[in-house]
Amino acid sequence: MGPFIVRDIGGLMRIARLAAPVCLVGCLAVIGVALFPAHRVKASPDGRPAYAKNGDMLPLGNYREWIYLTSGMDMSYSPKATGMGGMSMFDNVFVNPEAYQRFLATGTWPDKTVMVLEGREARSKGSINQRGHFQAVEVMDIEVHVKDEARFPGKWAFFSFDGPDKNGTLVPEGAPCYKCHAEHGAVDTTFVQFYPTLLPVAEKKGTLSSEFQKELQDQKAGK
Amino acid sequence: MGPFIVRDIGGLMRIARLAAPVCLVGCLAVIGVALFPAHRVKASPDGRPAYAKNGDMLPLGNYREWIYLTSGMDMSYSPKATGMGGMSMFDNVFVNPEAYQRFLATGTWPDKTVMVLEGREARSKGSINQRGHFQAVEVMDIEVHVKDEARFPGKWAFFSFDGPDKNGTLVPEGAPCYKCHAEHGAVDTTFVQFYPTLLPVAEKKGTLSSEFQKELQDQKAGK
Repeated sequence: MGPFIVRDIGGLMRIARLAAPVCLVGCLAVIGVALFPAHRVKASPDGRPAYAKNGDMLPLGNYREWIYLTSGMDMSYSPKATGMGGMSMFDNVFVNPEAYQRFLATGTWPDKTVMVLEGREARSKGSINQRGHFQAVEVMDIEVHVKDEARFPGKWAFFSFDGPDKNGTLVPEGAPCYKCHAEHGAVDTTFVQFYPTLLPVAEKKGTLSSEFQKELQDQKAGK
Repeated sequence: MGPFIVRDIGGLMRIARLAAPVCLVGCLAVIGVALFPAHRVKASPDGRPAYAKNGDMLPLGNYREWIYLTSGMDMSYSPKATGMGGMSMFDNVFVNPEAYQRFLATGTWPDKTVMVLEGREARSKGSINQRGHFQAVEVMDIEVHVKDEARFPGKWAFFSFDGPDKNGTLVPEGAPCYKCHAEHGAVDTTFVQFYPTLLPVAEKKGTLSSEFQKELQDQKAGK
């Protein structure tokens, strides 16, 4: 599997990345187009998750004012290149401030954690920029990883959004992203190994998963 | 001039990027090593600028909890590649929350705006990642663009920091970054054209510089 899955929905080319800083995707190809009408009700401003009656997740409001964790570009867990005709993508990851503060204090995520992955095209030439990449104005993709212990059997769930103001569609529990996060997430099924300010916190607090600690040991041993 | 300027200070290879989302550098090569001892006093937590008696800027405290504006990778305003032996860098840009809220309301920056550019190595292989780039734990570079109308003749100044807990050294007024920002910054000498959530605000509020508007017109005309 390659790093990009292209879906053409209603004339809008929507791109779901297979690998990204929070590994929220891969599973998206199995979802298809959301059948539910969009609800314009905003989630509560403190970033706690809220849902529509049909199980959709409500829009995230001002997630751009939450805590920034990291950005990646064209990340992929597959060595095989497929690409998008040379198109590149940035992924920016945000988390609600309350969950971030709890992570700093404990090294792990509290109930009601909401992590947002925002995808934007990585452009190269624009204004005076000649080389490298900057981020385009348009949001291409939004995915969410939410911890809601009473609501989801595995405590966490993924949602896919068609836009910042649209409702999110639940990614089915059997989708590959759940397994990948469970097997490879450094802390509580999340990819803290790619969040530069949080990895040292987890190391200090001793909250790295046994699987990730084994991965580190194998790397040191040159396996 | 290429995108990277390498300086070896006290055995630590420090990298100052010539082009970056806030174009804070280029001027750094002329600064040299700071002669003043580091002061460990933190700046005020609300992100307002504070200075030592010698003119240094005090450390920025929790800028990672400020508002995130964008990230770039290996951005350069020169078409010529020089590179760093294949090494790539991310630049993350943050602004103090009070200034961000004023920008949303007015389309421009208030006095006491503090913008932080944080440079981190872009790594490719690590944990399960095989392709693309993620951000390393270590901060390679911190630069600041600060608006302090009563303090600086041109209202804005640049500071270069050796680390998040160190004081920042003032970049001299004649350094190239001042001229580049004045000539090419889309709003009030800042590179809002590379901040995806703020460019539409400036367009709506009519605060784009005449130089940038001309640049847009020339692009449309195919010049």
